Amino acid sequence: MSHRVVVIGGGFGGLAAVRRLKRAGTEIVLIDRRNFHLFQPLLYQVATGSLTAGEIASPLRGLLKRRRDVTVMLGSVTSLDLEARAVVIDPVGDRDAVTVPYDTLIAAAGAGHAYFGHDEWEPLAPGLKTVEDAIEIRRRILTAFEAAEADDDPERRAAWLTFVIVGAGPTGVELAGQIGEIARDTLRRDFRSIDPASARILLLEGDDRVLTAFDPRLSARAERALGQLGVSVQVGALVSGVDARGVTVTRGDGGTDRIAARTVVWAAGVQASGLARLLAAANGAETDRAGRVTVGPDLALPGHPEVMALGDMVRVADGAGGVLPLPGVAPVAMQQGRYAADAVRRRLAGRGPGPPFRYRDKGNLATIGRLRAVGEIKGLRLSGFPAWAGWLLVHLFYLSGLQNRVLVMIRWTVSFVTHGRGARLITPAEDPPTGRGGSPGAG
Amino acid sequence: MSHRVVVIGGGFGGLAAVRRLKRAGTEIVLIDRRNFHLFQPLLYQVATGSLTAGEIASPLRGLLKRRRDVTVMLGSVTSLDLEARAVVIDPVGDRDAVTVPYDTLIAAAGAGHAYFGHDEWEPLAPGLKTVEDAIEIRRRILTAFEAAEADDDPERRAAWLTFVIVGAGPTGVELAGQIGEIARDTLRRDFRSIDPASARILLLEGDDRVLTAFDPRLSARAERALGQLGVSVQVGALVSGVDARGVTVTRGDGGTDRIAARTVVWAAGVQASGLARLLAAANGAETDRAGRVTVGPDLALPGHPEVMALGDMVRVADGAGGVLPLPGVAPVAMQQGRYAADAVRRRLAGRGPGPPFRYRDKGNLATIGRLRAVGEIKGLRLSGFPAWAGWLLVHLFYLSGLQNRVLVMIRWTVSFVTHGRGARLITPAEDPPTGRGGSPGAG
Repeated sequence: MSHRVVVIGGGFGGLAAVRRLKRAGTEIVLIDRRNFHLFQPLLYQVATGSLTAGEIASPLRGLLKRRRDVTVMLGSVTSLDLEARAVVIDPVGDRDAVTVPYDTLIAAAGAGHAYFGHDEWEPLAPGLKTVEDAIEIRRRILTAFEAAEADDDPERRAAWLTFVIVGAGPTGVELAGQIGEIARDTLRRDFRSIDPASARILLLEGDDRVLTAFDPRLSARAERALGQLGVSVQVGALVSGVDARGVTVTRGDGGTDRIAARTVVWAAGVQASGLARLLAAANGAETDRAGRVTVGPDLALPGHPEVMALGDMVRVADGAGGVLPLPGVAPVAMQQGRYAADAVRRRLAGRGPGPPFRYRDKGNLATIGRLRAVGEIKGLRLSGFPAWAGWLLVHLFYLSGLQNRVLVMIRWTVSFVTHGRGARLITPAEDPPTGRGGSPGAG
Repeated sequence: MSHRVVVIGGGFGGLAAVRRLKRAGTEIVLIDRRNFHLFQPLLYQVATGSLTAGEIASPLRGLLKRRRDVTVMLGSVTSLDLEARAVVIDPVGDRDAVTVPYDTLIAAAGAGHAYFGHDEWEPLAPGLKTVEDAIEIRRRILTAFEAAEADDDPERRAAWLTFVIVGAGPTGVELAGQIGEIARDTLRRDFRSIDPASARILLLEGDDRVLTAFDPRLSARAERALGQLGVSVQVGALVSGVDARGVTVTRGDGGTDRIAARTVVWAAGVQASGLARLLAAANGAETDRAGRVTVGPDLALPGHPEVMALGDMVRVADGAGGVLPLPGVAPVAMQQGRYAADAVRRRLAGRGPGPPFRYRDKGNLATIGRLRAVGEIKGLRLSGFPAWAGWLLVHLFYLSGLQNRVLVMIRWTVSFVTHGRGARLITPAEDPPTGRGGSPGAG
């Protein structure tokens, strides 16, 4: 029997582990709820009509079809048993739960949105983690302009043309910048009753600046670039209420503001996959407020060197009573995935444990719009064209599959030249057309 | 006041009318429920993972942004008044119904599926008319292979690997051929427990041959090509029951067969848009069994030369007590759209009515798979490579937008070379991931 590695999650971390285990002589089972790897850093471009979902997603079976050592299973993990060394999966279809034994478990199930105890805000202010999220946000943004065009009441029209993005991390900044471009550029000549450029785009941040993970000078530049795209940044602004007609904001001085807005997008916090809770509970531990399980400096569950967890669902202990300050970005998950795979290889070779995990930060880039971006690469601060070009190259490079790279490059080129966005479809329809011809509408 | 033309429907017919009215001095209002024009002839390639929806759809506002004479309105027609010359629209957003007056009305709202009095079959056997339909059928096809892979019960596995397509017109034939290719070619190395090539693909047709609109010799060739892709054609087979576990078929001899299948796709009939019923009722007429309204040889509603209707929602009287035998294809709608636009131009110029509408049949093509197609062009019968190449060129030519043409061409080239399908995503998930991290699944 060869050593069986069960990897949970086909995101950046899980896939990196599977790839690193090529020809390691292991038998790998990759479990995911979805049948594709999603390039999440470009998801905001699906939400804003620049790319289609299929262009940033790659079927897992296709990515791994030449890897006869890998079995892909679609399903959700419902429980796990650290003593028996097995996870239980609820697979697609009719079959009952399946028990999958492991010699090594690599858990890399990622994270979703966090609403800080206000889960009721989710339908009002969707976050951006899945393909479905992106298509729903795209639908809301585009429908808002349509509804404004159809309405002649100035107040309602203004609320339709107000877009609130909560949270000014990279996703929030990129989304706000893109909505600014849609309003000022893409849709410029599309409407007859409204001027899309009159749209208000508000980026709310509880902290004192945007992109807090970056150097403050880059935050200032990003804020300036956002301003040029018509985005108003409000820092020190905590959202204390969300409803169907807008948001309530508590300012730093304790006062509150009411913003009438029909489109609110949540980019403010993440909550680890429930798998983190299962792991912690199985080991008699607890998760932190963000739902993360704590792993050792070697990414292993304390007392279980055969169980490693990584990415957005974990905190990594630094071995001195604290945790490593790791950002929730793809490179961290990928490096951790490779680290976990190397640990398996080392164990199979009978070698002792390696050095603790250490994140090599190659840099950080965030794009704001056409020719506008900020970044840090090896301590070098970039902005404007160099940062923007670097961002394009890095994202094309890491996108899975040559075909997707070519398709995305073409879409970007055409968008750049024509100022257009080819994929700005409103789907699904709010009242999904059944195709039955029953409703007397058109199309 | 310039002459106001209201066009209902941004499909092939409506868009052709709008385009032909360029610089006619009219004021045009184009009404559609969706914000994009959909290239329906390629929808089956979305349903089978070859293309993404965004690649065969073009935003209507984008297509018409340079046409200052055109206003696009998103909404459904809820009623119409032939005397007052106005339609009432339920627009997107909060606004109440809007009355849109017209001088000329061009109704081109198309058709949906027909289940011959068995509407309860729709959720069990979806048809293929909308983007949502295509994504749902794609989800079902791909999930069936996943569920078969996850199941170890031979009977359930066989039912998951049985695909029934009802109706052997072009859509049914093309879908069946594509599913055959998916099973025998695309997924060949993707699974570990099942052999996708063992899938049964059944194409059921009530008539005595496939592609009844084509020459019988081409039907025979198509049937042979389908056989080579592993598709079993059953002619003279009427579906008399559909449920979650399969279909019941009544044979020509009156006997019934039971087919256990978990995936059933409906390609058997169309039902005109409800707008046809509104038009007929407003004029004191009735629709036919397929819900179509009858228009005169000039496409006008009897007694109302200012109201024209066209495409899949009408029957066109031949002026001699019968109706024109027009197939439900895009070229008919496009020619009718241009005919209607020309009638408007003629009226504005003070000229008398033109000759009745006459369909110029330029040919008919259906593709079955890789290098396999059949067609007739100006009486010339084609099959094999020439028909296949012709099909590719015609479809690329008529696809809207240079960008989409390039993207589709790249996808086709890559699929052809690699035998792959880049867009085979299962979305939306049956249990849509909320992104909340609450469920302990992966990804």
